[in-house]
Formats: sequence, C-alpha cells, structure tokens
Amino acid sequence: MIKAGVVGGAGYTGGELVRILINHPSVEIKFVHSKSNAGNLVSDVHTDLLGDTDLRFSPSLTSDIDVLFLCLGHGDSKLFLENNDINKAIKIIDLSQDFRLKVNAGTRWAYGLPELNREAIKTSSFIANPGCFATCIQLGLLPLAAKGLLTNEIHINATTGSTGAGQGLAATSHFSWRNNNLSVYKAFEHQHLNEIGESLKQLNRKFEQVLNFIPQRGDFARGILAAMYLESDLTTEEAQRIYRDYYAKHPFTHVSKKNIDLKQVVNTNKAIVHVEKHGTKLFIVSIIDNLLKGASGQAVQNMNLIFGLEETEGLRLKAVAF
Amino acid sequence: MIKAGVVGGAGYTGGELVRILINHPSVEIKFVHSKSNAGNLVSDVHTDLLGDTDLRFSPSLTSDIDVLFLCLGHGDSKLFLENNDINKAIKIIDLSQDFRLKVNAGTRWAYGLPELNREAIKTSSFIANPGCFATCIQLGLLPLAAKGLLTNEIHINATTGSTGAGQGLAATSHFSWRNNNLSVYKAFEHQHLNEIGESLKQLNRKFEQVLNFIPQRGDFARGILAAMYLESDLTTEEAQRIYRDYYAKHPFTHVSKKNIDLKQVVNTNKAIVHVEKHGTKLFIVSIIDNLLKGASGQAVQNMNLIFGLEETEGLRLKAVAF
Amino acid sequence: MIKAGVVGGAGYTGGELVRILINHPSVEIKFVHSKSNAGNLVSDVHTDLLGDTDLRFSPSLTSDIDVLFLCLGHGDSKLFLENNDINKAIKIIDLSQDFRLKVNAGTRWAYGLPELNREAIKTSSFIANPGCFATCIQLGLLPLAAKGLLTNEIHINATTGSTGAGQGLAATSHFSWRNNNLSVYKAFEHQHLNEIGESLKQLNRKFEQVLNFIPQRGDFARGILAAMYLESDLTTEEAQRIYRDYYAKHPFTHVSKKNIDLKQVVNTNKAIVHVEKHGTKLFIVSIIDNLLKGASGQAVQNMNLIFGLEETEGLRLKAVAF
Amino acid sequence: MIKAGVVGGAGYTGGELVRILINHPSVEIKFVHSKSNAGNLVSDVHTDLLGDTDLRFSPSLTSDIDVLFLCLGHGDSKLFLENNDINKAIKIIDLSQDFRLKVNAGTRWAYGLPELNREAIKTSSFIANPGCFATCIQLGLLPLAAKGLLTNEIHINATTGSTGAGQGLAATSHFSWRNNNLSVYKAFEHQHLNEIGESLKQLNRKFEQVLNFIPQRGDFARGILAAMYLESDLTTEEAQRIYRDYYAKHPFTHVSKKNIDLKQVVNTNKAIVHVEKHGTKLFIVSIIDNLLKGASGQAVQNMNLIFGLEETEGLRLKAVAF
Repeated sequence: MIKAGVVGGAGYTGGELVRILINHPSVEIKFVHSKSNAGNLVSDVHTDLLGDTDLRFSPSLTSDIDVLFLCLGHGDSKLFLENNDINKAIKIIDLSQDFRLKVNAGTRWAYGLPELNREAIKTSSFIANPGCFATCIQLGLLPLAAKGLLTNEIHINATTGSTGAGQGLAATSHFSWRNNNLSVYKAFEHQHLNEIGESLKQLNRKFEQVLNFIPQRGDFARGILAAMYLESDLTTEEAQRIYRDYYAKHPFTHVSKKNIDLKQVVNTNKAIVHVEKHGTKLFIVSIIDNLLKGASGQAVQNMNLIFGLEETEGLRLKAVAF
Repeated sequence: MIKAGVVGGAGYTGGELVRILINHPSVEIKFVHSKSNAGNLVSDVHTDLLGDTDLRFSPSLTSDIDVLFLCLGHGDSKLFLENNDINKAIKIIDLSQDFRLKVNAGTRWAYGLPELNREAIKTSSFIANPGCFATCIQLGLLPLAAKGLLTNEIHINATTGSTGAGQGLAATSHFSWRNNNLSVYKAFEHQHLNEIGESLKQLNRKFEQVLNFIPQRGDFARGILAAMYLESDLTTEEAQRIYRDYYAKHPFTHVSKKNIDLKQVVNTNKAIVHVEKHGTKLFIVSIIDNLLKGASGQAVQNMNLIFGLEETEGLRLKAVAF
Repeated sequence: MIKAGVVGGAGYTGGELVRILINHPSVEIKFVHSKSNAGNLVSDVHTDLLGDTDLRFSPSLTSDIDVLFLCLGHGDSKLFLENNDINKAIKIIDLSQDFRLKVNAGTRWAYGLPELNREAIKTSSFIANPGCFATCIQLGLLPLAAKGLLTNEIHINATTGSTGAGQGLAATSHFSWRNNNLSVYKAFEHQHLNEIGESLKQLNRKFEQVLNFIPQRGDFARGILAAMYLESDLTTEEAQRIYRDYYAKHPFTHVSKKNIDLKQVVNTNKAIVHVEKHGTKLFIVSIIDNLLKGASGQAVQNMNLIFGLEETEGLRLKAVAF
Repeated sequence: MIKAGVVGGAGYTGGELVRILINHPSVEIKFVHSKSNAGNLVSDVHTDLLGDTDLRFSPSLTSDIDVLFLCLGHGDSKLFLENNDINKAIKIIDLSQDFRLKVNAGTRWAYGLPELNREAIKTSSFIANPGCFATCIQLGLLPLAAKGLLTNEIHINATTGSTGAGQGLAATSHFSWRNNNLSVYKAFEHQHLNEIGESLKQLNRKFEQVLNFIPQRGDFARGILAAMYLESDLTTEEAQRIYRDYYAKHPFTHVSKKNIDLKQVVNTNKAIVHVEKHGTKLFIVSIIDNLLKGASGQAVQNMNLIFGLEETEGLRLKAVAF
C-alpha cells in the first residue's frame, strides 16, 4: 500500500483528493492536514463522506508516508516547502501553480500532464500538477503541436464551473448572482496562458503563435468546455487520425467523432476531444472535469505513474451523467 | 408626484425597490441612501440599472420627501428610527421585521398585508411590511381564517429562493454548494411563525392551532412555494368559492383552478393560490416572488394605498416566465 | 390606441409579445391567434398571465387592426402571407427569418434593427425582425462598421439560453440533459451569419471579412452573451468613444466601462456592450435577452417607431436581476 | 464472474446500471438489450461511456447469464416475462413497479429493500426493486416501524430531481420550464404510497396510520429529499439511538447528527437520515440519489446480496459533491 498524506485537505481539491483516495485499492491515507480544521472529522467538512471515513483532520504532518499531496493556495506551496523539511524519500505532488513554469520548476519539478510528459513523470519525485484550464486547452492542442502544426494564431473560448474559483466566498460565487448568469473574466490575460505556451513549445520548438484566450464563468459547478480553432490545411479525417494516434495509449483522453457536451466527463477523470474542419479552420472542442482531470484526479493519475501502478487505478469513476 | 427616499438601498430589497420606483409613474426618487456606497452610482451596485438612472447613493437623508422606505437588516430599522428624527409628515414603510409583531408595533404601526389590512394601511403613517414566507403562507390561509375554518393543526412546507437570505456571503449561498441542492433549515422554528399567528388570530379570534412549518432552501434565486394542508369539511368547490370571494377585490392575489408552478409569479407582484380537497384534507399551494410580493413590491403596493393611488400602479410587471 | 393582432401566439415569442402588449399604454390587443389553442384562455398556455388578461386564443383573424405580429416558425410566415389576404393598411412585423435577407425581403421589407435602420423602419409597413444571435452580435459590431473599421477577421463565441430553441421538445432541451451542461452547435455555420453580414455591409461597403461564429447552448433559459474580437488600431478609449457616440441616441443600447454579465439585461429590452483593448485585439462583449431585444421586445420597439410613439413606450421593463 | 444481462438499457436506469456494472469487479456484462437502439454503441446513447466500453445494444437476449436486470417501463416488465421464457436458473431483478405490491408479487418476488428485507433477498430469485420515493421515505421511517412507534399520522413532503420522470420528453421536463421552477404533483395520491404502506405494515403489524405525501418536482436532475414528521414521545437522543441501531449493520444508510443537504448523497448509493425532536413532533429528513439508491444502485446492491458478494462491491461511488 502506498501511504499518502494530504496538506490543505479542507478545500475543494483536497476534498476531491480524499474522495478518490479512500476508495483507491493501493492507497492508505495516513493524514489529512488542515490548520483551520485540525481535530474535526473530515466528514464534517466534506459532508458527503459521512459513513465512508472516520478520518480527522490532523494538526501536524508525519513522515511515515510515500507521497505528499499539496492542496494549498497559489504561493502557499512554495512557502510550505521552505518551512517544512520533507523527507527526501517522499514524492511530492503539488496542485498549486507554484512550480508549473520552468522558471520556478528548475530541473527538479516535472510538469504533471501525462499526455505530454508521462515518461518524465514516472521517474520524477516532484510533480507540478497542471492548471484546470491549462489541462483542457492543452489536451485540445497537443496532437497538433507534436506534429508541428500549430503554425497560426489560436482562438480559445473556455467556460469553467464555479468550483474552479475555490470555496472562498466572493460576489461572483454567490448563488443569487451566478445562477443563470454568464460572464467573461481575465480576457487575453489568464495566468494559465504561460504554462500552456511552455507545453506547446516543448512539443513544437518553433511555436510562437498568439494564444487568444477568453475565459468565461459558467453557471454550473463542475467542468470546463474549451472551444478552439486555427487556420489549418488538415482535413477532418486527417485531424481525427492525428488525434486518435496521439491519444491511442492514453487511457483517459478520448477522441469523439460526434459533437460533445460537458456532462460526458463531469465527475470522471476523462477528457474528450472533438475535431472537425470548417472552411479553412480546424475546430476543436475539449472537455474535462476541472476538479478531476483538471486537478485531483490528474494528481492521482500522476501518483499511479510514479509508483508503477496501472494509470487508471482508483480512477474509473462513474460519471454523474445528469 | 410622491417624493420617496430609500434607506439601505444597496441591498437586495433596496435594489428591487429602486427598480420599481424608477418606472413608477407617480413617484420621484429623492435619494437612495447607503453608508457603504455613498457617492457611487446606483447602477454600479445594481448593474442592471445601467442606462435607467443616473442616481448616486446619498450619504445623508433629506426631509423633502413624502415617504421613506427602510430596507435595513433586522434590528437596524429600530436603531435607525431611534437615532434619526424623521419629520412627522413623512410616511414610513419598514421592510425589516422590527415592527411586525404587536409587541413591537404598538398602536402606531400597521401590518402591511393589504389582503388582510387594506383599510388600516390606507390611513396609517407607519407600515411594517410583512416577511416573505409570512406573506406566502398567510395568503394561503387568510380566506379560511376569515371564515373561522382554521380549526385543525396546519402543515406547511415552503421552499425559498436564495435571495431570501440577502446578499451577504455565506456557505449556504455559495453557488458550488447551493446549485442543484436542497436542504431544510429552522424546521418548526422559523421567526415568521409569530407574525403569521397574529394575522390568523386577527381574523379568527379563537385560532389556537399548531402551525407546523418546514422551511427549505431551494436552488433558485427568486420565489417561494408553500404547500399546506389541514383537516377540513370543505369540498374543493366550496373552498375555491371561499378563496375566490375573499380575493375578488384584491388585484394581485389570484385563485387558480389548475395546478400551479413557481415561475408563474416570478418577477411579478402577484400571488397565486390553488386549493383542492384530498380525502379529509384541504390542500393549498401558494406562490409569490419573495423580493416583490414578499418584500419591495408589497412595500410599493402599501405606498399606493397610503397615497390613494390605484393599488396596482407601477406594479404591472412582466413576469420573467422562463 | 393601436389595435394589434398576434398570429402564433402560443409559442415563446408570441407569449412574450402578449406579456408586453397587455401593459403597453397605447396598444389594445384585438386577437391572439393560435390554431392549436383556439378557444383556450391565453392564460392557460402562458400561465403567468393568470389575472392579467381574460383573452382567449382566436381561431381566426379579424381586419380591424393596425398592426399584425407574426410569431410563426421559420418558413411559416411566408406561407401565411401567401395564403392570407392582409389589408394593405395593416403594418406587418414578422419575427421569423423569412424576410430578413435582401434576397427574400426585396424592396418591401425593412430589416427591423433600430440601431441600424431606425429611419427606414419608421416609414416601412413591413418589418423583418432580426434574429436573436444576429441582434446581439450586430450591436457589438455596428459602431465599428459605421466607421469602416471592420478590416480584419472577426472571432465570435456566443452562448444562448434554452428559450432560443423554442418550446418544442427535443433531447437538447430536456432538463436532465441541459441542466449544468454546455455544448457547441452549428459552429461556423449558424444561419444568422447571413443577416449579420448584410447589415455590416450596409454600413461598411467594403466589408468582406470572415465572421467566425461559435454558438453555444448554455444552461440558462434567457439571454445571449457574445464575446468577440478582432485586430484593431483603436485604443480602449477611442473604441469606447466610438461606441458611446454611435449609441448616444439609442435608448436601449448602453456602453458599459465595466465588465458586464448576462443578468444585467435579462427580462429587459436593453443591450449592453463593453469594449476594451488587449494587445492588438479589440475585445467586445455584448448581451441581450434573446426573447426581448432578441425578439418580441424589439418587435414592439419597431411598432413604436412605425406609429410615432416614444421608442421606449411599454418597454421599460423591470430586470429580473437575480 | 457473474454474467449479467440488461433489458431496456437505453433509458436512464438502464444507463446508470451499465455505468455501475462496467466497473463492478465481479460482473461481466453479456448483453445490453434495447429494441430501439439495437446495433448502436452503448456509448452513442450513454455518451459519458465513450472510452469505457465498446458494447453495442443487442437486439436479442442470450441465456448464458446469471442475472437479468429489467429496466423497463411500468407494465412492460410483466409483459416481457409473459412473452419471454427465461431460464429458471437466472435471477431476475426488476426495476419497474410491476411486482412490488404483494398482490402482484405473490410468494415469488421479494421486495428489494435490503434495509427491510436483506435475508429474504439473499435467498430470492426474483427481486422487485423499490421505487425511488418509496426508498427514500421508507428509510426515514423503518426504524420507527420496527419499534412499533408509527402510532400517529405521518406528514411527508419530498422533492425529486428530473431524472425521476425518465427521459421521455414532456412539458414538465423542458429545461425552459423546469429551470428555476418548483411545483407539486400527485399530492396525496402518489403510487408509491402503496409499497410504503406494505413495508411499514410488515414491520409494524398494527400500522394503520395515514401517510400524507406531497411530492414536488425540483429543478435539479438527481436526488430526492424527504422531510417528514409525526407526533412522538421520543426525545432526539432516543430517536437517534433507534436509528443508529437499526442501520448499524447496513453499509449504505447513515444517520447524521447534523443538518443534511441533498448533495451529500448525489451520485452515490448512500442514504442519509437525520432526526430531531421539535415540541411534540419527531422530524426526519431522508436523502438519496433517485437513480442509485432509488433505482440502479439498489438493484446492484440486491445482486450483491443474492450472489453472496460483499454488499458494497462495485458501489463505493465517488459523490459528485458539487
């Protein structure tokens, strides 16, 4: 059994991680750390876990673990690692953005997108888990990048569920405001653009194209749908083949010939990508669950890879479907 | 023109009141007071009013008004009136619960439910506007009370939209929590039970029945649906007649022979009541928009009555319907 | 009083039209025609109208009217006019797409977008009311077209509420499917592209740019939000000035300096447009209520213009806001 | 491996069953039968299954199975069994209401509510899976029935998600209608009252109380919340103890001391019950996912019991939580 610790377990990604790990056949949770909730039952915070676990939030960390998940706010992971001396034998999977960019990652941290970096992940002890928008958008573009086909400006509009903004209370997460609403935020300036750019360049050395990215706040709780296009010489069939080939050995990312909708992936670790040609434009739709493939599910997928488990172990989740 | 002032104009009921008053043909808004937003455009807070008004929130009150609406939190209206010397010629309509109960109202305040108290309202200078649940439930029971037919225990389950809880941020108003959710709160103990009891006793002197009231939080923003029943000797037809007769001269409350649903009244000042007999039980469904007939719309209805306008003036609002 | 008739009054746009007209101070509804519902109370179909009108659906048309609204399916308006001999003195406002394009409109029909065509509308007897997506997108682009500034490819992503698809039952309008879902449809191929292109060309003779349009199905009932951008030399300030100038005399379309969200216009006849520059891209967000400014509200606005009423008469609607 | 066949696999409960069975470690699906979809990929109908299964709907049944699930409309299961000669060695689990009542079940069918009938289920070859409302309500009342404490009239208000009504298109399942709406249907007359009554009588021989049941249609897709109360002499603590004792050995039904909300159980096979005393009333809230504990999950739970598997096998599902 892999012994796991979770830091920052009271938030959305921490809770989602616990939901996965308590049913993971090869994992034993040693502690779920939370400063604010130390001593409380995990199921008093993540109330859907009533009856599933008697764990309590721990005020401190123990070192009898094989893997440590950091589910902290952006900036806090770096601080945590500066202030805590983690045993070198322990693998660390960080869900914040602190180590995603090469300038912060150095040679130590691997970018944890298995569809891009699977072999590097397997041998790494430090994983920077990708952002949710970044995961969704990259999965829509990687097959083209790998063929050097991202030779034109890229246009992206992506809508995220409310859990993407975390559980903090804010005007834009108030039910009365968000219900039945839609809005744009951080147009052209979302922080995930940087990690997307680095990944595309990793596959497509000469990639210098503009990524135009319009993020939107949707009135649903889970999921991201990204609609993207660029000028391309490919036909629909050629593009489908390139995508199918690229993802053939990746168990969570699937290519659909049919039009897709967000709920096909909600509450799963899957991504589904659809490509079709319109005139001179190649159009790509990509969907994920922001808390799973976009966060905690991908973190467990990375753990599976590091420890030599089957990549899908503990991650064959029933879609909510409705 | 009636000159109106609004205190506490930055909240939900204050905003809703402004939305009504700016289109009311006989009203001129003299000020919308807000401490926290003094100097800001009203349309910067109630952003749907962009293009409809250039009003700014006022830091202070002026006395050149005929009517003052208090849209303050519970307890704050009382404080406000203790600390501010309001010209005696000004009519006051308070939307808080501070003066609804006889023990607080004394002989000065009239309970502002036109379907119960229309004549008293017309001649009063101080109106305590009813609570939203209280309005919805009373409109479902008043015709029976008026006939002395509330002779048995009453069973009430009512579900409210999120705006009923105000714009404060709270765990139960977070979109990620409330979306697609349902929950019970304050079962048997909601504070509106008292004002409902007083009204029923006013019509039905000997009323001593138990009111069992289960309030629920719905995953919609506006509206209350109350489902109620009690033992009764009436037939469906007799009950319908009693309800139709009672509401015949009340322009906002209608009796439907057909099954009803919440959205029939959302974004209107109307109430719709449906009655039918099942076995020995008389079953009543009552629906209102909590911010309109349950708050600001009713406040304007009371204003219309006080100033001798047509009761519906400025209140023929288009339902949102969808 | 203007005497109005409505054909196809049992559908969404027909119902919305009736909701507006029954409160319009200068209009008297002479009939609401519906084949399928002839004889039924209008309020039995549009159940929110209970208590507001005793009208029944009429099986036939009468000619004692000044204006006839056609709320029929696409293709049916043309058929209707071929099969019915309408008195030449009667103005006709058609909400279908049958007469929007010049090839179908000939010299007889005016395209009913007041922000583009107000003077032509005033003197026309035949109005082709614009499509909902077309209205939203054009209002975001007209000021640039008028200045000849649409000199580059345009990128549009727009999400519509479920009422845009009408009341017919379909898999994509089933609540279990659409709730919390998001999907793309008719990418690059939506039928409204044609009417948008014609309007832009009307203002911008040399307009030959590609309009890339990705329509999305949102999980809300009302409203359209369009996010658009193109290469431009304008600064934010220059663009804002151009937009403000263009819409200065149009009472329903407003330019917001602040970020906007869909619910600012839901249940109103307003449009709000926001422009800002990012790098070399001019970014435009445009919002409307698809059933009002995108259909029945705009139809009444056109009627007001034709009959010399104030453009906003009967259309100062309270936003639902929540 | 248990070999399973599914009849009626294209509907909601059929799809949900397939979602569970494809990940069940001890089950192999031999066929998913559907007349209307014969030959199509299962993942073309239940599109969230893309990448999870290559199964196609089968036009016919085979007899190489151990268990047959009937996911047919009410009335169709009876017809199916009359018209098809099923090998006697095959266990049958029927999700319709055709064999739930003793008058239809005879001595052959066991009522498949494990919390009531676990031992009988283990030895039965014919299981009538309970209704969704019936499951939710019974789980709230069984502990009292077992102690003979249902000695007074019972008051029940329960709200269901849209999937409870199946995938057929209907006015009340149209997104434009149901979104943000709430309504009552079949007040006092829901067909599940009969099966609830039989179960309570099974535990509480003298049970003759009236069950007042108000079903409501909620604007969410999954889940049922039932709020119930009755006169009782129990204290909160006594009631909690009785409930905890009753469910101590039932792995899916839990007693919460805290207030509960619907999403704690959505997308799980769990039920959570909360009890508290108010005055003389014992108040009980019970929540389930209507498609899982209320249908397909409970069907698999019954299968597990019949075949001697651990009751929770394949049913430790991750809650959607948001």
